[in-house]
Formats: sequence, structure tokens, C-alpha cells
Amino acid sequence: MTEFTQTFQQDFDKLLRLRRDVRRFRTDPVDGGIIDRCLATFNLAPSVGLSEPWRIVKVQSAAARQAVLENFETTNAEAIKGYSGEKAQIYSTLKLSGMRDAPVQLAVFCDEETPKGAGLGARTMPETRRYSVVAAITQFWLCARTIGLGVGWVSILDPDSLTKELNVPENWSLVAYLCVGWPEDVLTTPELVTAGWETRSDILETLER
Amino acid sequence: MTEFTQTFQQDFDKLLRLRRDVRRFRTDPVDGGIIDRCLATFNLAPSVGLSEPWRIVKVQSAAARQAVLENFETTNAEAIKGYSGEKAQIYSTLKLSGMRDAPVQLAVFCDEETPKGAGLGARTMPETRRYSVVAAITQFWLCARTIGLGVGWVSILDPDSLTKELNVPENWSLVAYLCVGWPEDVLTTPELVTAGWETRSDILETLER
Repeated sequence: MTEFTQTFQQDFDKLLRLRRDVRRFRTDPVDGGIIDRCLATFNLAPSVGLSEPWRIVKVQSAAARQAVLENFETTNAEAIKGYSGEKAQIYSTLKLSGMRDAPVQLAVFCDEETPKGAGLGARTMPETRRYSVVAAITQFWLCARTIGLGVGWVSILDPDSLTKELNVPENWSLVAYLCVGWPEDVLTTPELVTAGWETRSDILETLER
Repeated sequence: MTEFTQTFQQDFDKLLRLRRDVRRFRTDPVDGGIIDRCLATFNLAPSVGLSEPWRIVKVQSAAARQAVLENFETTNAEAIKGYSGEKAQIYSTLKLSGMRDAPVQLAVFCDEETPKGAGLGARTMPETRRYSVVAAITQFWLCARTIGLGVGWVSILDPDSLTKELNVPENWSLVAYLCVGWPEDVLTTPELVTAGWETRSDILETLER
């Protein structure tokens, strides 16, 4: 019952290789049942002390989308100023968000004060609550990819402003803003590699102690 | 080439359901090739700006293991004091670390100052570097489970002390301490549920904006 075949292990490796941060989406809608199926992976994620601190906002209204888009554009305009020369030139060509096209957009928060889990494991490392949310997002991302659905994680945002713009409880902190939809293309290489921004390492160095 | 079968999708769901935070390990060694195969998933993880900020320390020497164990025991003894009544009673029965038995132990850090990625996406949310490390750990954890290997994430630690005890660079921050090995049992239910500490939600509430 519990073991996984070699074929599954190979396909799992393929899944990791084909997972991309997607920024170019088709605008056609995604069936709500598919989104719900991907979101169901949140409840299977590891969480510190079983605190399950993930909180999800479906950003759907034109007003909310506009606020998030403006937040991104303002933050991105500031970010560009930090580069010069070739980096500035490449940066200006990058597409860093699929917000204008992605049919599904999710703001994912961490409830920093949830009583669930009674603080187990989070006393000296409270950031593990946010890490639990990231683990859940990672599972969601991979599940989406098994169905062919693309996910893009936007972090070029002012998180405190976004929290206010979306009017969520004060004890929620933004972990990620996710654009979700059918990708324009199936890419095997990260866009940042193709654009010449950064290379991908194929070795992993480790230390020993 | 890119699509995944329904059988794979179902097995992926089974993988998420069978992934556990493992605290009870057999002491027999794990072949280094298997660990390397699981560690290779780090290089496939998403990372902000392709910064790949994960740094891994294999904790192997008796001295290093003893230092980490003492760190855990001191931190755990402090944590127990935060509970009373039934919670204190349950807490005292919980096994919260496999450090005494797990044949492979990994301290996973984030390089907060890596030049890789040139800061892309991390200006307003520098915590996304640490989130990248968590995404990589999640992939490692799932990959390990496809092989039947257990992973347990210990967060009941003083992270600053651990960084010093393991003598890693100052700009590295501890994200996770992972115990890895063959699990004593294949569990379908989280130990914290079985022990009566916390329940698992089977619904996911979402807000709309």
C-alpha cells in the first residue's frame, strides 16, 4: 500500500524538473473544481505543531486586482532603480508578474497568532509558522503542475500595504501572491536563465561537521 | 512529454497523504547514494531571483551531534514550562525529535547575503530567500518519501546557538534541522493527532476580495 514504484519516482523527478515559475498565462478561465483540488493539498502539508496557519484570499474583484497590480508596479519601479548597466537593461525586459492575465490569483497569508497547535515547535522559531505556509504552497504548486496548471509567485510587493489593501486581519502576514492559470508555453528552462539574468547550479555543495 | 497521467496524479496525492514528520527511526545506515539523490531535488526547487540560497551541513561527528542534542534538550525543557494541565501532561509524552537515532542529520541554512540572483524579488520581501529554502526542503521531504525514507523537521532549537555550535558563516541563518532515516513504522496519521495534541482540519476556508 505504501510503496511507490520506480516509474512514479521517475515521474516525480520529471515533475520537479517541469515545475516553473510561470508569468505568461492564457486568459481562459480555470474550472473551480480544479482549483479546489489543488487547494486541497494545503490540508496535507506539514505544519509546525499542526498549527495549519495558512490563510487564503481569492483575489477576484476588479478593485482588489487593481490595488494589487498598482502595488506591484510601484514596488517594481523602485526595484529597477537598484540596478545599473547590463543588469538594469535585462531587468527592464523581464516579465515578473502574470497579474494582468492570470485568471486565478491567490494571496496567501500566515496567521501569526493562531491558537492551533498551542505554539508547539514555534517558541524559539516562530518563523516556522510562515515556513509551514511555504511548504503548503510548494505542494499546491507541484499539484497544479501535475494537471498542467501554471503557478507564478510574485514577491515584488509591499507586503504591509497589500495586507491593508485586501483588508485581512492584522495578525495575518503576507507570505506569497500567487498567479494561477494555464501557461502560454511549457518551458523546460527558467525564464531568468533564458533572459540571461542568472544561471542555475547543477551541483550542490555541502559542509560536514 | 509534459503531461502526467491520472495514475501519477493519484499517486502524487497518495504521496502527500503518506508524508509524515518522522521522529522514530531505525538506526541502520542509509546509502549515501540515496541521500544524494534526494538532495539533488534542491537544485530543482524554486528560488527567488534564482538565488539558490540553500546551504546544507551534514551533521556527522559525535561532537556536533552532541551539541545539537543538548541544544534541543535545553530548548525543549524551557518549552515544557509554557504548558500546564492536560497540555503539559501530553507534551511530556511527545517524542519531538529523532536525533538520538536518525543516521542522517542535516542542518539547512539560508545564505542571507548571497549575490546570486542579484536581489531580484527580495528587496521588499527578503524573507523569500528563506522561503526558497523551505520550498527546497519540501521537495526533498517528498522525494525521500517516494523512496520510503523518513524526514523529521526539528524546530525546538535555539537557532543562533546552533549556528555557532556548527561554526557556519555569520550570514547563514538556520531554517531547519532535519533528521533522516528509515522510519520505524509507516504512519498514516500525524503523531500529534494520535497523541491528542491537535486535530487536523479537513476543510480549507478561503476569503474572497
